[in-house]
Amino acid sequence: MPHLEVDDDVRLHYREAGSGPVLLFHPAFSHSLDLWNWVVRELSPAYRCVTFDPRGHGDSDKPDSDYTLTELAADVAEITRRLALRDVTLVGHSLGGAVCLTTVLDHDPDRRVARLALLAPAVPCFVRQDGEDFGTPPEVLAGLRSGLAANWVATQSGSAGVFFHQTDAPTARWLTDRCLAMPVHIGERYFGQLASIDFRDRLGDVHVPVLVLWGRHDQLADPRWADWIRRRDLPKWTVELLDHSGHGLMVDEPVRTAELLRHFISGT
Amino acid sequence: MPHLEVDDDVRLHYREAGSGPVLLFHPAFSHSLDLWNWVVRELSPAYRCVTFDPRGHGDSDKPDSDYTLTELAADVAEITRRLALRDVTLVGHSLGGAVCLTTVLDHDPDRRVARLALLAPAVPCFVRQDGEDFGTPPEVLAGLRSGLAANWVATQSGSAGVFFHQTDAPTARWLTDRCLAMPVHIGERYFGQLASIDFRDRLGDVHVPVLVLWGRHDQLADPRWADWIRRRDLPKWTVELLDHSGHGLMVDEPVRTAELLRHFISGT
Amino acid sequence: MPHLEVDDDVRLHYREAGSGPVLLFHPAFSHSLDLWNWVVRELSPAYRCVTFDPRGHGDSDKPDSDYTLTELAADVAEITRRLALRDVTLVGHSLGGAVCLTTVLDHDPDRRVARLALLAPAVPCFVRQDGEDFGTPPEVLAGLRSGLAANWVATQSGSAGVFFHQTDAPTARWLTDRCLAMPVHIGERYFGQLASIDFRDRLGDVHVPVLVLWGRHDQLADPRWADWIRRRDLPKWTVELLDHSGHGLMVDEPVRTAELLRHFISGT
Repeated sequence: MPHLEVDDDVRLHYREAGSGPVLLFHPAFSHSLDLWNWVVRELSPAYRCVTFDPRGHGDSDKPDSDYTLTELAADVAEITRRLALRDVTLVGHSLGGAVCLTTVLDHDPDRRVARLALLAPAVPCFVRQDGEDFGTPPEVLAGLRSGLAANWVATQSGSAGVFFHQTDAPTARWLTDRCLAMPVHIGERYFGQLASIDFRDRLGDVHVPVLVLWGRHDQLADPRWADWIRRRDLPKWTVELLDHSGHGLMVDEPVRTAELLRHFISGT
Repeated sequence: MPHLEVDDDVRLHYREAGSGPVLLFHPAFSHSLDLWNWVVRELSPAYRCVTFDPRGHGDSDKPDSDYTLTELAADVAEITRRLALRDVTLVGHSLGGAVCLTTVLDHDPDRRVARLALLAPAVPCFVRQDGEDFGTPPEVLAGLRSGLAANWVATQSGSAGVFFHQTDAPTARWLTDRCLAMPVHIGERYFGQLASIDFRDRLGDVHVPVLVLWGRHDQLADPRWADWIRRRDLPKWTVELLDHSGHGLMVDEPVRTAELLRHFISGT
Repeated sequence: MPHLEVDDDVRLHYREAGSGPVLLFHPAFSHSLDLWNWVVRELSPAYRCVTFDPRGHGDSDKPDSDYTLTELAADVAEITRRLALRDVTLVGHSLGGAVCLTTVLDHDPDRRVARLALLAPAVPCFVRQDGEDFGTPPEVLAGLRSGLAANWVATQSGSAGVFFHQTDAPTARWLTDRCLAMPVHIGERYFGQLASIDFRDRLGDVHVPVLVLWGRHDQLADPRWADWIRRRDLPKWTVELLDHSGHGLMVDEPVRTAELLRHFISGT
């Protein structure tokens, strides 16, 4: 399977389909590139779709590095350079959304990314913040993290039941099983990033158009953060809610997700 | 895992076992080389068994190419050249049988393939043809294809129940799970080849001995095509039915399948 | 994923985590490096943990070789040379314990291995021996071997229920599913090594400290062999029983397993 090398010696598994304007997709925490299969089916007739397994994920290398947003965001930027991608629509899901936002803010000096789509992202924050009355309480997140460490497989398997809204059980189970390729010591480290994410003061710094998609039935990333973003009236930011999706909206509603991405790219 | 390169830049995962006369095995639609594990166990003590994951399958590359019979058949021919195989017994299952027949008819100018074994093949046709009173109706196939596209995982999982006749459920489930490595946009494309397969006028053009094996309980490829072939009285063609097999006869009856392949190779 | 080459042309998948004194882990029959994930989580903050899939296992090559203890033991030694490891604590589980003992006895001329930990090992013997009143009877082992060959997937799946003592079912199932990467013809060959293992006269030849860990609830490798070893009063050998573990003690009790390994390495 094709790989490209980033960060000196880390090989990432990636896949391409289609030709045309480029989309680069970053999956959620612990998920593989297969999370995007249904959206790729919709878009690859008219777009070049590049999917990959981030470090620690799927069939990519699992180095013993820090798994900070910075590290992962630098990998994304390196992929755009290695594949010589330009005018990229960068699509990040969940924790991968926080990674992609970091790429655009801090790791893209030659502006290869022209558009940013954040799907059920772990931004502006994942945990409840002072002054907000929603979001996951920090102590709940800490409990989730230690539960994940203590029961990695069972917790991941259980997530199949809450990740999606209308996706059938065999698909949810299969996608969740793919998450287990990440070893627990990496899972714990990367998942721990969720605690400190806070982009509330930086959303206005994004210099490219941003599309935020969120499923109304999301049980993992609180959709009220979508409202929070919308209320900021940021000129670059557009927010759309999907009526029939949970957290995994690209599998719950691949046709609708693809349609919204097409409109975003074409500026209509 | 060992790979070889075909078609400029497509890497195929392959595996070898045993030494002696060469058999090269092509699996069914979306299946991996593991489909052959039990037959390899029988034959590798006296034969060189080469199995591989075709493009789009298993641990091989999944390029965004056409997935026509011609493309897949050229890959098979390229494998015989890259591994310098001669006097090959080429064994193709289901849609892989149509690929292997195409290899022999159109892609083997230096005649590396000496014998062709077609197991529950998608030939001479897969769908019902004018003038025949059996075979899958075209509209049923079209429905299957769109169902596969809409519910890739669930449809594949469901196939575990009809693919085999006497194979135990854990084995059927495991082999079927291996099919999910193929992304849906490739699955839809390659599966679509079934609609237009029609080798009825070309069977007599095959210049090597052909052995056709079919399970009497096949629920996916209609065994009446075996009778159709037999009634043609083609001098190069031999047809055998297996009494206790469904579509996946090499797993339902590996000992019998191996025995028939041995007789075929030795000409007894 | 990182690979290293041994034995001219066999590529082994390996993974590293942490820095400090080196531990090299060899999994049980048919298991992948993921068996060690929980122990690696405990130890990698202070140790360099190297795990790998042996030939025929997991994501490593599956050459058609002999799968004798000698062959596998030479691979272990080659890994220590390729990675330039020194002062290694070699940890082998079950049949992998017999491999690691062979490495230390016969394949480590420059003494890279400084300590040997045997977890629920298939040593000194796996089957019942003349003069002993415990251990698996040879005819039972022969039956297991032919059952494994006849029903590879179902037998492996069934082993999930007896391999562990307190590990949850999803984890047991996932680890067991990873075993299926080994094709049956290799599984049968390697498993067959168990019949002839007899190190009773060689335990005193080991020139490095040996720690033996065994779960009291082990249903696969008879823990009475632990008592047998202890009764020999061998100066280099220490035996510890884990109260809440079955055969897969590094998953049943990763914290306790790691603690005992730490004490063993530090000599306390």
